[in-house]
Amino acid sequence: MGKERLEAFSDGVIAIIITVMVLELHVPAGTTLDALVPIIPIFLSYVLSFVFVGIYWNNHHHLLRAASRVNGVVLWANLLLLFFLSLIPFVTGWMGETQFQATPVALYGVILWFSAVSYTLLVRALISNHGGDSVIAVAIGDDRKGKLSLALYTIAIPLAFFIPLAACACYVIVAIIWFIPDQRIERKIEQRAEE
Amino acid sequence: MGKERLEAFSDGVIAIIITVMVLELHVPAGTTLDALVPIIPIFLSYVLSFVFVGIYWNNHHHLLRAASRVNGVVLWANLLLLFFLSLIPFVTGWMGETQFQATPVALYGVILWFSAVSYTLLVRALISNHGGDSVIAVAIGDDRKGKLSLALYTIAIPLAFFIPLAACACYVIVAIIWFIPDQRIERKIEQRAEE
Amino acid sequence: MGKERLEAFSDGVIAIIITVMVLELHVPAGTTLDALVPIIPIFLSYVLSFVFVGIYWNNHHHLLRAASRVNGVVLWANLLLLFFLSLIPFVTGWMGETQFQATPVALYGVILWFSAVSYTLLVRALISNHGGDSVIAVAIGDDRKGKLSLALYTIAIPLAFFIPLAACACYVIVAIIWFIPDQRIERKIEQRAEE
Amino acid sequence: MGKERLEAFSDGVIAIIITVMVLELHVPAGTTLDALVPIIPIFLSYVLSFVFVGIYWNNHHHLLRAASRVNGVVLWANLLLLFFLSLIPFVTGWMGETQFQATPVALYGVILWFSAVSYTLLVRALISNHGGDSVIAVAIGDDRKGKLSLALYTIAIPLAFFIPLAACACYVIVAIIWFIPDQRIERKIEQRAEE
Repeated sequence: MGKERLEAFSDGVIAIIITVMVLELHVPAGTTLDALVPIIPIFLSYVLSFVFVGIYWNNHHHLLRAASRVNGVVLWANLLLLFFLSLIPFVTGWMGETQFQATPVALYGVILWFSAVSYTLLVRALISNHGGDSVIAVAIGDDRKGKLSLALYTIAIPLAFFIPLAACACYVIVAIIWFIPDQRIERKIEQRAEE
Repeated sequence: MGKERLEAFSDGVIAIIITVMVLELHVPAGTTLDALVPIIPIFLSYVLSFVFVGIYWNNHHHLLRAASRVNGVVLWANLLLLFFLSLIPFVTGWMGETQFQATPVALYGVILWFSAVSYTLLVRALISNHGGDSVIAVAIGDDRKGKLSLALYTIAIPLAFFIPLAACACYVIVAIIWFIPDQRIERKIEQRAEE
Repeated sequence: MGKERLEAFSDGVIAIIITVMVLELHVPAGTTLDALVPIIPIFLSYVLSFVFVGIYWNNHHHLLRAASRVNGVVLWANLLLLFFLSLIPFVTGWMGETQFQATPVALYGVILWFSAVSYTLLVRALISNHGGDSVIAVAIGDDRKGKLSLALYTIAIPLAFFIPLAACACYVIVAIIWFIPDQRIERKIEQRAEE
Repeated sequence: MGKERLEAFSDGVIAIIITVMVLELHVPAGTTLDALVPIIPIFLSYVLSFVFVGIYWNNHHHLLRAASRVNGVVLWANLLLLFFLSLIPFVTGWMGETQFQATPVALYGVILWFSAVSYTLLVRALISNHGGDSVIAVAIGDDRKGKLSLALYTIAIPLAFFIPLAACACYVIVAIIWFIPDQRIERKIEQRAEE
């Protein structure tokens, strides 16, 4: 089964998610710079989510490049990932409009946690479809980044109820960890191509 | 006539439909977990519709893969399907915001009923274009799933006026029936490829 | 210059336009069938615009298929068409919410008129790029449908200020005229392919 | 690494940005032509932004055509450009709804300034990936248009606080400068193809 339409559909959904978030940035009431002040937390929340959705698109791009085919399980794992990503605009808006209050920050982490788990399920579905010695399987390896992210989210969620900004710091750390695209896959593909 | 742009346009519309629904999840008024309680029915309604639109995308993906060409009738049957799918965000919002009241639940079923009939028209248009012994025709076969879905919707719509949640149960059963992608087509394509 | 990205971008914009209109269908206030009554004109207005945007997509699809290349003039003519199409959700909402009052119905016609003129400019740009004896030029021919549509819009716009529903009838007639996809192009391509 | 998905994703995001802006054009309160008067500045603001986003799509289209591959740095430079472009609907709405007041007009220029810088970074990332004597490097040349645009934005931003309409005039001049698609690249590609 071809992977092209899966990529196209995912691109479409992720493109809409990343853009729909900006609708949360309502036109301010005033006409001066002061009018922008209440929007600052909403803007920061938007920047964080833009980076996260951008990272997911980047990694999804790399992951599917390493795949040569998809099956029904992969389609559904992909839809599960898109479902949790589609909730990011909602939690982004809540977190921003409440100026990073405890519960919204925790819920933001919960959605990131589920997104990360769905991504892992998608990776597993692709590996089991391609075989344990495939490019994907070798490239993902022990998935240190993925495990670290999940650990950070798991710490951040309860932490949010005590020090919301510390939880936000965890999210920023995860974003920095993933900022560099998944060069493992890139490198492995090149190695294979050379062999 | 090539099918690529039909797929691309349908992917675009379906991707927007599935994502636009999340805009119904308005940012809650409060900052605590309690503030999420009124959103629960809207969220459940969103989950159900996400699964339905996901199923349509999945089946559309499989159906078009089995097709080798499209004509004017197929283009219009496809637009009819997209039209009814485009009404799903509206009925999803109404059903969720009224906490699964009788009329909105019935209307939700009406839109699903029309979507299912449009999908059947699309299948028929593709079969009449490809011939009765084509991969699509053989793969669709007697379309037991499709007929069962239509029967369940037809029961659910009047039922909604008496026991709305029983109608919702019918919708969930249809979703479960279709959850597994259409392996008939997948299997038939593989068989043909082997011959 | 390749036409693939022009098609992809146009598909994206048209897909969004056709779907964004449904956001005008706000969740009704009540929970009964009566609550849907005020939405009926908005719904009818949505149906009309869905058909028009669907027709534009269909014809755009056929037109670009007959094209083998695009240049800067074609890119800008295409953007001009997309600009006027992007105003359709606005006039659709106004026409529906005012229950087909004179001025909104006339403005709807104005936008359709500009869309039709832009489409004609796109066709001319493609013909001048491909030459007067190209598939596109021959297929478009004397463009009777296009001229008839423009004539009907030109009648409908002033008519809307006296009998709004008569203007709407003109729009419906244009929709019916175009409903059948542009078989001229389809036929000509097949003829060329046979030679 | 293939550039197809980068183009597809960018097309999706830009298509959404250009279309989402029209949601700012709210359905007017009245039913007569007078009701449209308060919308005029919002409409003019929309037209200006439509042209700017159209120019970015056009130039992005030409730029990527001249590219043969992308890497991680290019992906992130592209996301940075999409981020600033995604803020255009926000500043467009603010500028229009405040009828071109000083601060919103200045902020509009700030976003255009950052978009232009991001585009330059994307160009630099592509050149450093393709080499100094590549088609892209030769075609971009000394980038007079880009430098002139940045200079005009840099003048317009402080100017907006004194004469907002003069700043708007600067934006219009930049739009006119870029209106003609980047023929440098087109010409260079043709020359290379002929050699």
